[in-house]
Amino acid sequence: MTQSRLNKLTASLRTSGLSAVALNPGPTLTYLSGIGFHLMERPVVLLVAPDQDPVLVLPELELPKVELFPYKIQAFAYGENPSEWDDAFRKAAQALGLDGKRIGVEPRQMRLLEFRHVKAGAPEADYPDATDVLSGLRLKKDKAEVDAMRKAVKIAQDALEATIPQMKIGMTEKELASELVMQLLKHGSESEMPFAPIVSAGPNSANPHASPTKRKIQVGDLLVVDWGAAHDGYISDLTRTFAVGEVDEEYQKIHKIVQESNAAGRAAAKPGVPCANVDIAARDVIERSGYGKYFTHRTGHGIGMEGHEAPYMRGDNMQLLEPGMAFTVEPGIYLAGRNGVRIEDNLVITEDGADCLSDMPREIRVVG
Amino acid sequence: MTQSRLNKLTASLRTSGLSAVALNPGPTLTYLSGIGFHLMERPVVLLVAPDQDPVLVLPELELPKVELFPYKIQAFAYGENPSEWDDAFRKAAQALGLDGKRIGVEPRQMRLLEFRHVKAGAPEADYPDATDVLSGLRLKKDKAEVDAMRKAVKIAQDALEATIPQMKIGMTEKELASELVMQLLKHGSESEMPFAPIVSAGPNSANPHASPTKRKIQVGDLLVVDWGAAHDGYISDLTRTFAVGEVDEEYQKIHKIVQESNAAGRAAAKPGVPCANVDIAARDVIERSGYGKYFTHRTGHGIGMEGHEAPYMRGDNMQLLEPGMAFTVEPGIYLAGRNGVRIEDNLVITEDGADCLSDMPREIRVVG
Repeated sequence: MTQSRLNKLTASLRTSGLSAVALNPGPTLTYLSGIGFHLMERPVVLLVAPDQDPVLVLPELELPKVELFPYKIQAFAYGENPSEWDDAFRKAAQALGLDGKRIGVEPRQMRLLEFRHVKAGAPEADYPDATDVLSGLRLKKDKAEVDAMRKAVKIAQDALEATIPQMKIGMTEKELASELVMQLLKHGSESEMPFAPIVSAGPNSANPHASPTKRKIQVGDLLVVDWGAAHDGYISDLTRTFAVGEVDEEYQKIHKIVQESNAAGRAAAKPGVPCANVDIAARDVIERSGYGKYFTHRTGHGIGMEGHEAPYMRGDNMQLLEPGMAFTVEPGIYLAGRNGVRIEDNLVITEDGADCLSDMPREIRVVG
Repeated sequence: MTQSRLNKLTASLRTSGLSAVALNPGPTLTYLSGIGFHLMERPVVLLVAPDQDPVLVLPELELPKVELFPYKIQAFAYGENPSEWDDAFRKAAQALGLDGKRIGVEPRQMRLLEFRHVKAGAPEADYPDATDVLSGLRLKKDKAEVDAMRKAVKIAQDALEATIPQMKIGMTEKELASELVMQLLKHGSESEMPFAPIVSAGPNSANPHASPTKRKIQVGDLLVVDWGAAHDGYISDLTRTFAVGEVDEEYQKIHKIVQESNAAGRAAAKPGVPCANVDIAARDVIERSGYGKYFTHRTGHGIGMEGHEAPYMRGDNMQLLEPGMAFTVEPGIYLAGRNGVRIEDNLVITEDGADCLSDMPREIRVVG
């Protein structure tokens, strides 16, 4: 499977005007190799060019991983002393004849650490952004990938259902986040979580990217839980918003608006329409309700091995949806300093519509 | 506290020849601000220059975090469309008058994503590696930091003790890793783990950086568990090696050698001696035993907010140990394709020696 993925990459390199790509540890490297490398203070880089065996530069202590590659690679290992590292990168670039060529990179993944060594190895090369070429590889999910995501959604939903009875007034956001992570593991999530859950209540829920704090959950809070599980390297990314005891009428109202917005976004998702349509459909509901300026982010992002990948559900994204594309629909309303709501589902485009992988109730549920 | 850290940074900038530093989300940014930002596909960068309020470039949806800063900052927020982002970075660089100056960066943390935008904002600036200046800030831990690390060690040790009775023949490495993470959370670790535990048995234990697999634990395996907890943003990073049932005599022997090596490394740690001494003392035990070429990595790395930071216990590192420096001592022997051993402790240098924060038994223990 990884061999055919590699072939697909070299085919797209031929049409993209790139001579090679340079990949550091991250989803693309894992997708192409089936191997997990971590981002360390020692650079690991895979160079892939058409018609040649890929080249891997890595620290000597990672050499056992070379054996795990599903196809032949050339390895250049370096020792513990950083002054030797550039030399390994120079040999690697020479092996593929890369200097002066166009070597694509992933700016969201590659650090200056790796980049500066790659560049020392091929100082005359250009390093264009290859995100589109590379994310194109992973854009349309095959059946095995969708099955893994479906399982990751099921694990996440079961874990949250098991956590709901534990949600008690006086608990801190951090305590609730820990309980949720335990339930995710108990229900079978991989121990490398896709992301740390967001558990945010009251004023914190009005920050879409809050981290759990020591603030105690209080009656009258809205409680946003944004969580996911990992299964076979694929993830889920969901959000539900709860009411802690009785909450103000306005908060019940914005919850209902977001629920309608989420439904409208999901209904707009089908093959052949631009990503923008999903955003516009969801945003329209919130704008018509008068809360447009409190919906401060795009409606969704792609999902698969990562929590944030193409395609993006943004009002200006004219990319057409195609079967196999997977993404979130997650509108929200955030009343700064007060309370916020977000409702997030995971969808996969099918031949004639979209399959919503998540089916947990979206109505406001009272906890505490 | 973060104000005094910021003052310390601007003082070191004055003596370092740097006009500013550019920081993306990561430990240094958290250390200086007390705020957790995540690495996203949208760049967040803090620019710090002496005698001026720091400047933060961030997406509009992160604006609530500006309020959390413990000192005055200038914020430049950008919208969802990436074509606007460079403009925010240009304004930010102009606000501090940075173009053409020397702006320090952290190559291990900064991605090309942030770097290319920073550079678009100040195209004539130089971007030297400021790792030494910045890691110098965090190099010597104060009492509160050591207390947090001590707690992180206690949580980790208690969690592993609670996991040992669950270690059963036929269990997969992944299952055991999940159980351990659950115990870490149950014992109070923050839900953002410092790193995913390594649980590797038999041939996998001979790979120092193995990820847990679906391989079942078998009689005769050595079982390496490399794990840690997080408390108040500080982490622990420990390793113990177990015998699954009865193991070959050679494996018992290499365990004993590594245990002696670990003790020698710990004994060499004291103020005023070079980091190299710790590596040399630990390595010498393994070399004298004839297994020198199977100890394929340095003896240790610094520890604090990160699992890998300065100071590094490497044979060529002449940096002198000083009170407050915290690091791991973790020698190992790896017999490729067969079995491996590593024993890792966490130390803090004191006025007259070193305080070993971890005290879990290091002798080989039989499980299964």
